[in-house]
Amino acid sequence: MLRPGVAVEVRVPASSANLGPGFDSVGCALGVWDACRVTVTEAPGLVVLVEGEGAGAVPLDETHLVHRAMRTAWAEAGVEPPGGLRLECVNAVPHGRGMGSSATAIVTGIVAALGLASASAGRGGDVDLAAANSLAARLEGHPDNASASVFGGVTLSWTEGDATTTVRLPVHPDVEPVVFAPETQLSTARARSVLPQQVRLADAAANSARAALLAHALASAPEHLVEATRDWLHQEARRGSYAASMDLVDALRADGHAAAISGAGPSVLVLARRERVDAARRHAPDGWRVLTPGIPQQGTSVQVLDEG
Amino acid sequence: MLRPGVAVEVRVPASSANLGPGFDSVGCALGVWDACRVTVTEAPGLVVLVEGEGAGAVPLDETHLVHRAMRTAWAEAGVEPPGGLRLECVNAVPHGRGMGSSATAIVTGIVAALGLASASAGRGGDVDLAAANSLAARLEGHPDNASASVFGGVTLSWTEGDATTTVRLPVHPDVEPVVFAPETQLSTARARSVLPQQVRLADAAANSARAALLAHALASAPEHLVEATRDWLHQEARRGSYAASMDLVDALRADGHAAAISGAGPSVLVLARRERVDAARRHAPDGWRVLTPGIPQQGTSVQVLDEG
Repeated sequence: MLRPGVAVEVRVPASSANLGPGFDSVGCALGVWDACRVTVTEAPGLVVLVEGEGAGAVPLDETHLVHRAMRTAWAEAGVEPPGGLRLECVNAVPHGRGMGSSATAIVTGIVAALGLASASAGRGGDVDLAAANSLAARLEGHPDNASASVFGGVTLSWTEGDATTTVRLPVHPDVEPVVFAPETQLSTARARSVLPQQVRLADAAANSARAALLAHALASAPEHLVEATRDWLHQEARRGSYAASMDLVDALRADGHAAAISGAGPSVLVLARRERVDAARRHAPDGWRVLTPGIPQQGTSVQVLDEG
Repeated sequence: MLRPGVAVEVRVPASSANLGPGFDSVGCALGVWDACRVTVTEAPGLVVLVEGEGAGAVPLDETHLVHRAMRTAWAEAGVEPPGGLRLECVNAVPHGRGMGSSATAIVTGIVAALGLASASAGRGGDVDLAAANSLAARLEGHPDNASASVFGGVTLSWTEGDATTTVRLPVHPDVEPVVFAPETQLSTARARSVLPQQVRLADAAANSARAALLAHALASAPEHLVEATRDWLHQEARRGSYAASMDLVDALRADGHAAAISGAGPSVLVLARRERVDAARRHAPDGWRVLTPGIPQQGTSVQVLDEG
């Protein structure tokens, strides 16, 4: 039973997925944050307010992604939804750029829903992040972005049945993510539709080797990050969907930067050595934003604003 | 020009390849050694003597694998082969078991050939192990076993063109390899012939995730080694070729041991936690040998016995 007046604020970081060979498994949290205050109201009905990224574009009714994720989380937890609900979202994560905005929304909704239930039950808003992670991966269809958003850092995730397991991969202090974001958007659904169902065994083996190298290079051998971010599973198949992004990836890699498509694109991620961040930034095409958001070591947080 | 009388002794460790998801890329050196003394003789002709594993079975003429590798290495290096040659091999690496015996023979031949040339030229037998590694990978057709034999430890290798690059993966001190070797042999060529040319994209992605986990678990999270040794690329496709080995892998994994087929089989490797080595050993079927050879941190060595 959710008490009227109970309110939480949830903060969730953006993320970059894949990092080259870690297709659908590796994610990197980025220090760009969506924040959302959610209040159970006496007045019936749903109010959704959005500031920042997505304002004026995302729906403000029951189909708003944060709200949909909340309803699913309550249904899973056997919590009856309240009659009145107010969402105040302040978004900094750009939409449709491959920075995990749908995962941040889903994680926001799940953690807000569970946080409200916890606060209403006098448990102080504590949320089982492992359960939130599994549910978010299920709603998203892949765990890579959501897990990085939930836990922070660089994450490696796999799903068996309904349960997603996530481990944190250690990251060498010399590694600094640089994100190149174009003005154009690309939907993940469209990007996924062009992937082949089958790949050559030799390519699967080559990709697996580089995935192993990615974990090693991130932890203790950043000099191998260029080789470690090479992919055989998804980027070339989607080249036509984000040609300018692939041109940028190619140019950066030819200049010795560990570049890969960020998630399903069209943003480009570089796992830069610190002393080469500026050299990487200089590759930015006209009109592209360049971010050096850092890797937050803490992911999603929930704060109880009012116990109702 | 190779001087008559020049002689070297080469020692090369066995290896286990793949470790589950690291198909054709990850190898683990094992503390079981082949040793070979090679002497350039005044008397023309080839003499091959073999003691231990393979004695009475391997050919003792020009087709002996160590000798063939020597001829190739000399040809590559532009060294004229001598008129007389004597090989005295003392082998401990079992043949046809998935413990890398063909790689040890190839590495032995290459390093002996280069060592003899170096000693003859007054360079004290120094051998460029990176070049030896690339040539061995080319002769073997995959770099995983040869690289572990050359460098020791656990290795991750990839080949571009003729050049193989190998990095050492750090290994947590709690990890102890246990090898289960049956009496039956299986040829690598036969084992490779049953592999599919194509795999599902989802399986390639799942395998890549576990390969990343393998590097992480070996270095700093051995509690994840069971998940980290799960494979989607080769083992199930070959189940019919080594049914008893897969039964053993299944039984060990069901009991919480990180088991995988060693190379192309039929031996089984467990990356055991030290406190569970004895529990793993108890799974050995009747007639199987169980080895706990350790992981040598140094791989191939060459010693000049006579400068001729």
